[in-house]
Amino acid sequence: MPDLTHASRPATVTVEALDEHGARREVAIAGEHALTVYVDKQELLTLMTLGGAPEALAIGYLRNQRLVESIDDIVSVHVDWEVSAVAVKTRAGLVDLEGRTARRTKTTGCGQGTVFGDLMEDVERIRLPRGATLARSTLYDLLDRVRTHDTIYKQSGAIHGCALATNAPGRSEILYFVEDVGRHNAVDAIAGMMWLDGVDGSDKIFYTTGRLTSEMVIKAAQMSVPFLVSRSGLTQMGHDIADKVDMTMIGRASNRHYLLFTGGHRFRPDE
Amino acid sequence: MPDLTHASRPATVTVEALDEHGARREVAIAGEHALTVYVDKQELLTLMTLGGAPEALAIGYLRNQRLVESIDDIVSVHVDWEVSAVAVKTRAGLVDLEGRTARRTKTTGCGQGTVFGDLMEDVERIRLPRGATLARSTLYDLLDRVRTHDTIYKQSGAIHGCALATNAPGRSEILYFVEDVGRHNAVDAIAGMMWLDGVDGSDKIFYTTGRLTSEMVIKAAQMSVPFLVSRSGLTQMGHDIADKVDMTMIGRASNRHYLLFTGGHRFRPDE
Repeated sequence: MPDLTHASRPATVTVEALDEHGARREVAIAGEHALTVYVDKQELLTLMTLGGAPEALAIGYLRNQRLVESIDDIVSVHVDWEVSAVAVKTRAGLVDLEGRTARRTKTTGCGQGTVFGDLMEDVERIRLPRGATLARSTLYDLLDRVRTHDTIYKQSGAIHGCALATNAPGRSEILYFVEDVGRHNAVDAIAGMMWLDGVDGSDKIFYTTGRLTSEMVIKAAQMSVPFLVSRSGLTQMGHDIADKVDMTMIGRASNRHYLLFTGGHRFRPDE
Repeated sequence: MPDLTHASRPATVTVEALDEHGARREVAIAGEHALTVYVDKQELLTLMTLGGAPEALAIGYLRNQRLVESIDDIVSVHVDWEVSAVAVKTRAGLVDLEGRTARRTKTTGCGQGTVFGDLMEDVERIRLPRGATLARSTLYDLLDRVRTHDTIYKQSGAIHGCALATNAPGRSEILYFVEDVGRHNAVDAIAGMMWLDGVDGSDKIFYTTGRLTSEMVIKAAQMSVPFLVSRSGLTQMGHDIADKVDMTMIGRASNRHYLLFTGGHRFRPDE
């Protein structure tokens, strides 16, 4: 287990604004902080983040970019907001950094638009568990829990949320709920938490408030999660990739409404 | 004036989905296409885009990353969707590409998360026109026009929109309205259109459906636009930068509601 700091930043700050009546109002807005990632004393990149889970974010970023292969490769993750930096120490350096950084793809994702290397090539190799199923009652339980979850979004807007949830008949409990100014930061932080806690994605549900673009689908697939649920819509490439990796993807999900787009063989509408 | 193709892609495609009643529905979803940018035959990066204005997007991307200094530096922009590529030919190459790519910042923006070089350093040098003013009646006229604008969002969701609009007393006309799966693509495409048409930003209003993060504020400032209006909220760093460059920034704007956050000296609530 890596040695970690626990250096969250406050989620919101209050600023003054004038409303349409000319009245002075105190408005909570989401924090946004630069966090430069150093790996083995080399600068890798700067993330802009809400700062709620910076250690898990750094770990999940390295995981989702496939720059480290296992949590055991990470010795320590130390965040120091005084210098807006997170120092990651690895056991044996990063995986093929030069090859991965040679091809940059700016994706439609928020937050971490760039994907090092070519994740698309990896998609071909992903196999999601075919036997897992999701009952409609479980989906509805998850949507209820997400709705009543206390969120920074409700205070400040301008933020994306992601959750990883369990999948039992009629019951879906939220294991992690992460919000960030960049949607991909939220996904990456959850990937980091899963590694830290030894949580496997193959029997879980991934929920996001954000759009299902190519990059979101790829990240969920990399975490082996067969069920991807979004309150929002999806894009053509998100749809195509979900179809290709045979992911069960549900969009426009809120209250008792949803659209099942792909992987319908895992969905049980009558349970 | 550069030699241009005009190679838009269809904005939406139709896919099948099952709704909560088990009924089969045809759903319009936003297109998402990879577009690899080659400059003088060298691969620069791959953008994921709706593909509505790929030539303006490529030009605006190079402009906003300050890789070209003037539209006159661009000889031609040719899009070929068969190979998912846009070939840009310049008169004299890109500005300091190595220096700019050395420092990568992943920002909270959608679409083009990475900013080459360090845009933040440039912020110090930006001076927005102090004399420009915006009347409340003009703001309301803009919000009315945006609301009634026929959008891809209304069909498919999963998309961000940006507009550049004029600013006359009580009247604001939309000059450009661009939607894309990445919010920053929409901003960049507008920057490209402004260059192509010789449109100056210093007397205009920039409207976005998306969140006002650091990167959005920086891009609007780089285009010399003093008025930034969003339907959504803002982040702490977006607020700080708008304050620093003295931009008039209005958030949560729809119907007859808004919050004026910064640059209030340019706003005329009684006009």
